[in-house]
This record gives sequence, structure tokens and C-alpha cells, in this order.
Amino acid sequence: MQAVGVVVEYNPFHNGHAYHVQQAKKLTKADVVIAVMSGQFLQRGEPALVDKWARTKMALASGVDIVIELPYVFSTAHAKQFAYGAISLLQAAGCQTFTFGSEDGRLEPFLDSFVLIQQNKELYDAFIKEFMTTGISYPKALQEAYTALQQQFPGTYIDLAKPNNILGFHYIEAAHLLKNKIQPATITRIGAGYHDAINEQSQIASATGIRQALFQEKVLQNINQFVPSPTYQLLEEWQQVHSTFASWHTFWPLLRFAILRHTPEQLSAFPDVSEGIEYALIKHAKNALSFNDFMDKIKSKRYTWTRLQRILTHIYTGITKQQLHAHTEPSYIRLLGMTENGQRYLSMYKKHMTLPLISRVAATQNDMLSLDIRATTMYQQGLSFHTMNDDYNTPPIRR
Amino acid sequence: MQAVGVVVEYNPFHNGHAYHVQQAKKLTKADVVIAVMSGQFLQRGEPALVDKWARTKMALASGVDIVIELPYVFSTAHAKQFAYGAISLLQAAGCQTFTFGSEDGRLEPFLDSFVLIQQNKELYDAFIKEFMTTGISYPKALQEAYTALQQQFPGTYIDLAKPNNILGFHYIEAAHLLKNKIQPATITRIGAGYHDAINEQSQIASATGIRQALFQEKVLQNINQFVPSPTYQLLEEWQQVHSTFASWHTFWPLLRFAILRHTPEQLSAFPDVSEGIEYALIKHAKNALSFNDFMDKIKSKRYTWTRLQRILTHIYTGITKQQLHAHTEPSYIRLLGMTENGQRYLSMYKKHMTLPLISRVAATQNDMLSLDIRATTMYQQGLSFHTMNDDYNTPPIRR
Repeated sequence: MQAVGVVVEYNPFHNGHAYHVQQAKKLTKADVVIAVMSGQFLQRGEPALVDKWARTKMALASGVDIVIELPYVFSTAHAKQFAYGAISLLQAAGCQTFTFGSEDGRLEPFLDSFVLIQQNKELYDAFIKEFMTTGISYPKALQEAYTALQQQFPGTYIDLAKPNNILGFHYIEAAHLLKNKIQPATITRIGAGYHDAINEQSQIASATGIRQALFQEKVLQNINQFVPSPTYQLLEEWQQVHSTFASWHTFWPLLRFAILRHTPEQLSAFPDVSEGIEYALIKHAKNALSFNDFMDKIKSKRYTWTRLQRILTHIYTGITKQQLHAHTEPSYIRLLGMTENGQRYLSMYKKHMTLPLISRVAATQNDMLSLDIRATTMYQQGLSFHTMNDDYNTPPIRR
Repeated sequence: MQAVGVVVEYNPFHNGHAYHVQQAKKLTKADVVIAVMSGQFLQRGEPALVDKWARTKMALASGVDIVIELPYVFSTAHAKQFAYGAISLLQAAGCQTFTFGSEDGRLEPFLDSFVLIQQNKELYDAFIKEFMTTGISYPKALQEAYTALQQQFPGTYIDLAKPNNILGFHYIEAAHLLKNKIQPATITRIGAGYHDAINEQSQIASATGIRQALFQEKVLQNINQFVPSPTYQLLEEWQQVHSTFASWHTFWPLLRFAILRHTPEQLSAFPDVSEGIEYALIKHAKNALSFNDFMDKIKSKRYTWTRLQRILTHIYTGITKQQLHAHTEPSYIRLLGMTENGQRYLSMYKKHMTLPLISRVAATQNDMLSLDIRATTMYQQGLSFHTMNDDYNTPPIRR
């Protein structure tokens, strides 16, 4: 059996995702699709709309055969580490290929961009250094250095100003670091851009657009046309149980409590908290009227929205620099769910996997896994769960 | 002008308190009554029903002239440290005497009990050691040693099994440690025992009884006869603004969040967390259905209700062993409020006080004070305050 991997958040699973899964199978002639999916907290530093089990159900109902969890350490990290964790896990799970979305379905611009930087590392670094002296931010300097490199060596490259392209670039890089035992492929993304609002004429909307519609209009019906019916049903069930979707808006009273419970010195133990941002966090947490008001008060050129949200995620979950940075390599494959087809694959290939497959967390003692469990516990607090859907009592979803 | 001091929590201020204040003034012929009052968290390890400003208003409306704050470090400590902090502050504020409630108004049994232990320290310690070997708890062993000492040296002593007597004992001890520059006196407590439920025939009820009535029956009218009318009005106003009184029941979602956000190792940084209680806290915080359910699950012979509540107070406020134990001597007199009469006293004697008088916290940098400010911030989180009654923006109450 052949397996193709995809790297996903499914926040929530929509028609564009269903299309990608279908095409991934077709393009690679794979028998099973394995999705490595972020757990409760996502790469932009946000809680997922609904928990990882609900999102696993959505995926299994719409074409994915196996869902494994991208550990918290990677799911909340910057693109490079996020991609490395994800591709490592897909390789460990036995995928021969992985696919990712692109604007035009051509892999070459990604490969060429990677080679461009790879082969001109010294020049690239010199450019970055030079641009940094002009006082611009590090990400901005990376961008400018990349442009300068392209002028030096003309060719067809990807635009690294686009978030999806940055991820694609780092997937290629990860495959390279993993000695290309797992092969990349790309599939044209259809219908909607990464952050586009929903469009009533289409069946495809970005996850960002769908979330906006859910939070701003609060009418689930509005997104019906953009998601497979199992997603719709699962969102409806979730809303009935929790009366809200998870967001920083929902979690704000607890986040504020977490911030104010620390001294500035204690806050600086959390990842990426430095340069005095700890004082601003405390000062504005006291007076902010809402999460958005808080963010408006603390954001700056240096501290972008995403960077701040990642910091807040770690403060919220209580996961320190020391705990987060103790781990750089995935050490397990956490199974969140599988179809019958997925189960067949696992039965056949489990023993060949290069990392242990974990179905029951209670049987495992692993520091990296303990952070995933913590993330779930804290996610649940935000929704005032009591005893449901705990990492210990939720077995892998079967479909 | 002569000042008499009282050590209080006023949770809430009731008729028994009003009687004590009146008698204290009469007995000592003092011109002003100074109350050293616990801030937002109390000696039994609980948040106060209403905040320190509301309680200050109650006191000033019913006979107290000056209210100063007993810092968090002392207000949440065991009896010995609580009493030492309180009596030190009353002395520093210029009180020649202090009064406390007793069953029969006789001071001698307190003094004799103190001298009994003081003069037979070695024998007392030997008794304690002996009783500890039988496997009983430390407080129990203290109790037994005290009984044994009384048998050896017959006399009229106080019963140290009663919480109020324990406090009285430690007030005497504190005065002794402070070289008896401040003199103790005692006033007969009338009407109700420390923990007695309310009695419809009486005008006196214990604060415990009043709180029970407020939480269990939720009808403010039921306590009307037991409190001065300003107390009643202030409780009514509070209820209108916050719709609830502060309690662990109200604070439970935040307390649970605080516990679960830590590893067992991190929890052991909080005062008195040791011997594995950190594991029990995390385990039961996950599954408990309410604060009371949680307490039932974690309490034991070794960890009594009060001891646990004090631990939980420190976890809730985020105040660590290191922060709490850095301070053993009061270093400021924090003014919470005063009447005109109180203000006259302060104007005359302020410069003779042996500690700085603080009216505005913003002007002061003091580590012990920063814990009081933190306690207020965290107290407010439990009631979902936004920007009201902060330590920085609330000047002393004037009446």
C-alpha cells in the first residue's frame, strides 16, 4: 500500500481541503492519505475553532484515512520548525510522498527557490546582515535579501511574501534535511486565497473566511455551502454542546488571568518573551476591554500579531521556554483517528514505522507528549469543559 | 490623643464587631480606634466576601476611625505570623493598647497560658516530640503537649482548641516579642460562637453564620438584623454590581485553570506545597465538579481544609514560596480609610510612626506591597472586574 501525506490544520475542514485530499490521492496514486494535523493550538498562535477530535472526524468523513497529531512543539512554532516536524512525521509514518497546495501546481519554483538560497547561503546571509543595519525587522530583511538574490540569479521563483509559499518552501527544506526519502508534490489551490473572505458565488472559501463568518455573523448556515456536510454537522453539534467556538475572544478572561498572575520576570520564562514585552503584557492586560483591544495595545512593528499570539499561546498553556525548547525531533506518532482503510495500512506497516505509534496516551511517558496533553487540558478550560474529550479518555476516532 | 487597636477581617462587619469597637474605646478610654484589617484574602485561605474598600467603608461607618491593611504576607499566614504582623502594625501606628475578643473578658488565662509555655519551653518541646512519635499530626501534638503541661502546672488556662483563643494567645506572644510596648486587653464576646449559624432571636451572629446565610439562602434580607445598616447597604450595592459575593465557588474556574497550568514540579514552588500534594491537586482539579468536590477529594488528616485553602490562595494569586518568605517584618502602614477623627489623629502622629504611612501605592516601590497589589488584581479577575477599585486608582476612603 502506498501512502501520501498532507500537512493540515483543518480549522475547519472545508471543500478546498476535500478537493486537495482527492487530488493528492489521484496525483500520487496512493492507497491512503495520512494527514498530520495540528492539535488544539495552531501555527498562527490561536486555539482551534473546535478540538482535535472533532476536526479528526471531519477529515475522516471526507477522504482522509489516517490523522496523526502534529505535536504542540511544532504546531505552534514558526514555519521552519512547523514544517520540519510535520514532514518528519509523515516520513516516519511511511509516506513516500507529501503534497501541498500552490497557486499554479508547479513544484519547480519551490525547488529552485530552495536551491537558490541553499547554494548561495553566504551571499544570502551577507544580504540579511546588510538589510538589518537599515533598521528593518528580521522577517523584512529576509524578504529583501531573497529579492536581492533573485536579481543576482534570475529565474522563476516563488513569492516568499505569501504565507502559503513560505510553508511550501520549508516543506521542501524539511524533505531535503530528511535526505529526500519523502518526495514533495504540489496541487493547484482552487477558488480562494489564504485570507479571503467568503464569496457567496463559490463553493470554496478559505478557512480564514469561514471563521470570520462564524464569529462575525454567528450564523452557521452561512458557511454551509463551503464545507462538506459532515463538517457542517460536527460544527452544529459542537455549537449545541459548547454554545461557542474556541477563540482568543472566548479564552480572554483566562488568558488575562494567566498574564496577571506573573511577575515580569516570571513572564520572561515563556518562549519569545524578551526585550520588555513582559511589562507591556502586564500593563495592558490590566486595562484592556477585550482581546482585540489588548492586541491593538501591545502590537508593534517588532511584535507582529502572529508572533504575539504565539507568545500568548505559551503563556496561556503555561509552557515555558525550557519545556518547549527541550524538544526538536518528533519522538512518537500520535494516532488521532483512522478509517477502515487507514487501519489496514497501519496493521501492515506499523512495525516498519521509524517512531512508535501511540494510540493510548496513558500507556506512554514522553515529555513532548505531555505538552500535547497539557494543551488539551488548557484548551478545555477555555470552554469550561469538565471531564469530556480528555487526552487520556479519548481513544482514536474510528470510522 | 490615645489610640486603641483591633485586629480584624470584617467579613462582613456585623453587630458583634460594632459592639467590640464601642467597648474597646470605652475600656481603654481611647480617642480613636485603629483596625488592622486583612486585604482581599483571609486567614482561613479564602477570598473576602467583598473587597477591602467595601469592608473599610463598613468599618468607618460603624465606629472605626482608621483602617490599615494587614499585608497579604500576614493575612494569609498561620496564627503566629498573622498575629505578629497585625500587632506590629498597630504598635507602629502608635496604639498604646489593643483589644481582642474572649469568652469571659479575663486576660489572665491568656497571659498565664503564654507564660506556662514560655517558661517551660524545653519540657513543652519534649512533650511535642513524644506525641509526634505516636503518629498524630503536628497541631494535634501541640495540643496534647499543652494539656500535659497544664497537668504538670495546674492553673487557669485558656482552651487552645478554640480558634479565637489561639489567635488571642499569639497576640499576647506578639506583644511580648515587641517588648510589651503595646498592651493587650480583652473584651467579652457576646451572642454567638465563632462558627455558629445565625439565630433568628438574636441581633448577634458570627461572620461565618452570616456568610452561610448569604451563600446558602442567597437572600440578603435574612442577615439584616445581624449587621449595622451601612453594612447592609454596602452588601446590597456590591450584589447589584457583581451579582455575586467572592468565594472559592465563584473563583473555582480560575483556580482550576491556575492549578492545571503547572507541572507538579512548578506547583511545588508555592508555599506549603510538598509531600506529593502537588500531584493530588492536579489530578483532582481535572475531574472535580465543583470547588467543594475538589476539597473533599484532596483533604486528609495531614492537609486540613484551612491548610489546603491557604495553599490554594497562593496558587491562585501566583505568589511563590520565594516571594512570600522574603518578608517577615511589616515595612509600611497602608492606609485604607479614615474618618475625620482618624484623620486628625494621623495628622498629629504621622511623623512619630515607626513605619512609613502609605496613602498612594503608585508612589511606593516595596516588594511586600507588590504582593498586596497582586492579590487585589487576582481577586478582581475572579469577579470579572475591568478597571474598578484597583490598588493604584483607589485613594483611601474618607468618611
